[in-house]
Amino acid sequence: MLSKPMEYIETWLFPRPEDFPLPTSPEEAAQEEAELLRRRFPQARVRFFQEDLGEGYHIEITTEGAIIHGQGAGLLYGIHRLARQWALEGAPSSVSSAPKYALRMLNHWDNMDGTVERGYAGRSLFFEDNAFAWDEKRMHAYGRMLASVGINVISLNNVNVHPPAQHLLDDLLPEVKRLADLFRVYGVRLLLTVDFGAPVFDGLSTADPLVPDVAAWWEKRVQRVYEAIPDLAGFLVKADSEFRGGPHSYGRTHADGANMLAKALAPYGGVVVWRCFVYNCQQDWRDGTVDRPCAAYDHFIGLDGSFESNVMLQIKNGPVDFQVREPVSPLLLALKNTSMAMEVQLAQEYTGQQIDLYYMQEVWQEIFEVLSLSRLDAICAVSNLGRDKNWTGHDLATANLYAYGRMAWDPAALTEDLALEWARLTLGADSPAAETVADMLRRSRGIYQRYTAPLGLGWMVRLHTHYGPSPEGYEYDKWGTYLRADRNAVGVDRTAKGTGFTKQYPPRLRALYEDPNACPETLLLFFHRLPYDFPMKDGRTLIQRIYDDHFQGAEEAEALLVSWEGIRPYIPPEMYLRVQERLLRQVENAREWRDVINTYFHRYSGVEDSRKRKIFP
Amino acid sequence: MLSKPMEYIETWLFPRPEDFPLPTSPEEAAQEEAELLRRRFPQARVRFFQEDLGEGYHIEITTEGAIIHGQGAGLLYGIHRLARQWALEGAPSSVSSAPKYALRMLNHWDNMDGTVERGYAGRSLFFEDNAFAWDEKRMHAYGRMLASVGINVISLNNVNVHPPAQHLLDDLLPEVKRLADLFRVYGVRLLLTVDFGAPVFDGLSTADPLVPDVAAWWEKRVQRVYEAIPDLAGFLVKADSEFRGGPHSYGRTHADGANMLAKALAPYGGVVVWRCFVYNCQQDWRDGTVDRPCAAYDHFIGLDGSFESNVMLQIKNGPVDFQVREPVSPLLLALKNTSMAMEVQLAQEYTGQQIDLYYMQEVWQEIFEVLSLSRLDAICAVSNLGRDKNWTGHDLATANLYAYGRMAWDPAALTEDLALEWARLTLGADSPAAETVADMLRRSRGIYQRYTAPLGLGWMVRLHTHYGPSPEGYEYDKWGTYLRADRNAVGVDRTAKGTGFTKQYPPRLRALYEDPNACPETLLLFFHRLPYDFPMKDGRTLIQRIYDDHFQGAEEAEALLVSWEGIRPYIPPEMYLRVQERLLRQVENAREWRDVINTYFHRYSGVEDSRKRKIFP
Repeated sequence: MLSKPMEYIETWLFPRPEDFPLPTSPEEAAQEEAELLRRRFPQARVRFFQEDLGEGYHIEITTEGAIIHGQGAGLLYGIHRLARQWALEGAPSSVSSAPKYALRMLNHWDNMDGTVERGYAGRSLFFEDNAFAWDEKRMHAYGRMLASVGINVISLNNVNVHPPAQHLLDDLLPEVKRLADLFRVYGVRLLLTVDFGAPVFDGLSTADPLVPDVAAWWEKRVQRVYEAIPDLAGFLVKADSEFRGGPHSYGRTHADGANMLAKALAPYGGVVVWRCFVYNCQQDWRDGTVDRPCAAYDHFIGLDGSFESNVMLQIKNGPVDFQVREPVSPLLLALKNTSMAMEVQLAQEYTGQQIDLYYMQEVWQEIFEVLSLSRLDAICAVSNLGRDKNWTGHDLATANLYAYGRMAWDPAALTEDLALEWARLTLGADSPAAETVADMLRRSRGIYQRYTAPLGLGWMVRLHTHYGPSPEGYEYDKWGTYLRADRNAVGVDRTAKGTGFTKQYPPRLRALYEDPNACPETLLLFFHRLPYDFPMKDGRTLIQRIYDDHFQGAEEAEALLVSWEGIRPYIPPEMYLRVQERLLRQVENAREWRDVINTYFHRYSGVEDSRKRKIFP
Repeated sequence: MLSKPMEYIETWLFPRPEDFPLPTSPEEAAQEEAELLRRRFPQARVRFFQEDLGEGYHIEITTEGAIIHGQGAGLLYGIHRLARQWALEGAPSSVSSAPKYALRMLNHWDNMDGTVERGYAGRSLFFEDNAFAWDEKRMHAYGRMLASVGINVISLNNVNVHPPAQHLLDDLLPEVKRLADLFRVYGVRLLLTVDFGAPVFDGLSTADPLVPDVAAWWEKRVQRVYEAIPDLAGFLVKADSEFRGGPHSYGRTHADGANMLAKALAPYGGVVVWRCFVYNCQQDWRDGTVDRPCAAYDHFIGLDGSFESNVMLQIKNGPVDFQVREPVSPLLLALKNTSMAMEVQLAQEYTGQQIDLYYMQEVWQEIFEVLSLSRLDAICAVSNLGRDKNWTGHDLATANLYAYGRMAWDPAALTEDLALEWARLTLGADSPAAETVADMLRRSRGIYQRYTAPLGLGWMVRLHTHYGPSPEGYEYDKWGTYLRADRNAVGVDRTAKGTGFTKQYPPRLRALYEDPNACPETLLLFFHRLPYDFPMKDGRTLIQRIYDDHFQGAEEAEALLVSWEGIRPYIPPEMYLRVQERLLRQVENAREWRDVINTYFHRYSGVEDSRKRKIFP
């Protein structure tokens, strides 16, 4: 337990008064939200009507006020929806809603030492000094935040399970149970990240999934865990990936590994969420025949249909690793007989680290333009949260959590203006600043992409930290992320004539990506190796387009700061200063990117900027 | 104290039997060496004759055997010399010797947590878990090793003073005293690395050297330290460098800072060793007017003559940072009225990390071709030692420690074949392998340079780790280490027409370095920016020379392995396998360097290898 309560800010939610008792069930939590609504809008009248609508709800408007139909967390989702109606529209309206996906997950990559892998918002909300350490009030605030947007599963510990997190399954189980009990109030279930090699740490000679003793070991663990936490969502596993062991260590397949765990979990209704982030991270750059984007598909397509029904493959949205621009993972489009969760990353690892603004709704819109909603069985995000007072380091980055929750409930929400919705909920529906903030959010992704990732190139980041430009920092390393720029051309040819990655796509997309004149320009250098004088659709050369994008991106970053400065009177002073500090750093970062990338390509190409702007030698 | 004794190997010394009591004075230690000599060579007769020759000795050969004249450590140096005569020549001979420099120092960069900064031979010999932790027997072995080559000062803790090493001056002083007492037996004095900001950690509001309270604080500390360790050599300080505070933080000069400490140390005969590794490590790569090699000279030349007589500036041998090829630091050539210690690096940070073979005698020979011996007042090396059984990770890397000690005693030793001397002492004077090993050592530096640092280019290493190739890993970073390669040329113009670095040299060297046709080819790209078709002295182009050097370097690395395999029967089996493992890794590393560097320049230049060898695209 932390000695000092963790301060926090309420963002899109009505502030919760100190004098409210902490609720002990979803129904109580819903009652409190109703009371809170009445305090804010005295004319609001709310009643609850118990009815089995699964996790869904129905808001019925009668002459005597609103009736929320539902049960358990459904009532809570309903009252939050009603509160949003009041906050945004000043009046309620009848509506029915049910979640598109049963599992709407958030993965924390928190380590028990208190650090957060790829965390940009302070230390862990749950851990410190290799022990549980959390503040009860803040945990309730967090649960409330999750419930307000419908997120219903969280994993606490890093998918890279570092000691002593192996003991969440045994010695530390009572502590896990305490959090499970707390989050249950908000309709949130826990998912436990487990180490596939755990039996070996416990003294078994092997973790081979086909060895009966190993299966028995897991069965016993699962039994004990479910005795403590009967509604545990299941296990999350990163195996055979980036130096983590897995079934391959024993000559077994991912299916062998996942199915063994699935059988142990099945009696309790638990699922195995099995990550597909599997690739060769010891690649030799000299071997041009190996192409990292091919990896997930190559590893898993042959296993389609061989997984137990309670195994769910968790697949990153793109084929590589959360770069600024990636096409949809072909594996998401190809599996036919396997449950799938799509994994997106709210933590801005490659997208500005919650220093630079990067709002993700557009990313997800693009995904669902290609991917039909029904292909997915669940949705998952890597958390962008930490112990920082504003939860996400950058105040405006909570918009990503908000939009994610809305999408996870139903991706149809992506057609709505969620940026404005978040801004109005956070700053007040009538705030003169809301539209400006929403506009900053909407512009942010294009801006970030222009100064960091020209035409879909990625990985020009500093080694390990992934912030700031280092175009060839990864070029000769073992991570499979190469630009292969030379004095004539840049990029990897991933067409049928090149590495063949395009062949993993269904015919329509394959044709689109295969042809550099048809390929979306934002993905041009993801799929193609092109000469610097390649003609773009508007007649500019490729190299001129790279220069232009970088000059434009840096100017636009400066414009974000100007936008923010223009709304200063309408922003709470502390928030203003926090965001201003981030934007100032973003401006520096954008100029650095502009200059490094322009110089980098100028050194290779020798081509001058047609508009004679400054490119350093 | 460690719970388990640290195993070690005796390298160039006669093994010391277990039954010898640990000596308690240099005289006792000398007597033990005499006894050891008699055990090895029963015909050896030795007597000692007390005579004040400073640290020197005189070996007088009489009909009744050898008489060693000297006192204290001098006797010890004398008996080690005599033992070397017997070991190498099978007979003694008359000789007198006295050290050229009074301070012959070794700096350990050990942290109290047990790690060693830039350490490649295991963990610290002195520390673990933020406490002293050493094995008495091994410490005596270490003292013996130092005495055998005349090293007489060591600093234990990293120049970057990490907590709790600040407390070596106070709470931990009794522990320091224990080691000082131990090493005194071997004529070795301690030098304490101190944090210039220490007064602030102790509660003072400032560490400003001109504030009387600060000076008084240091005086008190010094008094206490010398009460415990009356023969302490003094303090070693890294200030105003790489994020460490110093007098600049208070608007004071290095002289202000060093002199304040010097006055505190003077009554006790202590010196301040003040490092000159001062440069802007937050440089903007866009600013071509700032050139890192200029930094030490620019910072210190104006202070010449303003230091107290017991201040000694410790200056790295080259102007940058222990790269494979650097010219001599111009500061070493320019200071006229300031004491100087030259700092070399035995730890192979940029020179193969004690995986790749890199014997340093030639480096030092080149230095003294330019630098007269009498310009220096002392000599210092960064240690290559750690807790590994063989002391230096790579067995053959102890040759660097041996050669360093011999040079520190008198650089005239560099004209001798120290590689062969070490090999014969280590493997036996008649070992059929000695000449092969010596030859491997002699070849090693040229080989390593050819595959890593073509024509004096440096810094093409992986960020932070400094092992393995990443040509542009540092290119846009803040460390001031840029290649500025483009499709036409490579290198930084450091002549008068460029950054002006050459102007820091005296006229003859300036003229030599200024002219690319006169400049030594090994430093060509250190001083000049040149087009790829620049004609080398033998008619090859610069780019062809780069390719040739890299192909040759990798072949030569393979040949080192072949040489080693050829002497397998004559090498102790464990040593054989340890070195073989290193050489196998070196071969891999050399091939990686060859391919990365050739590809890197091929991508820029577009020039094909004239001999059509494989260059990856």
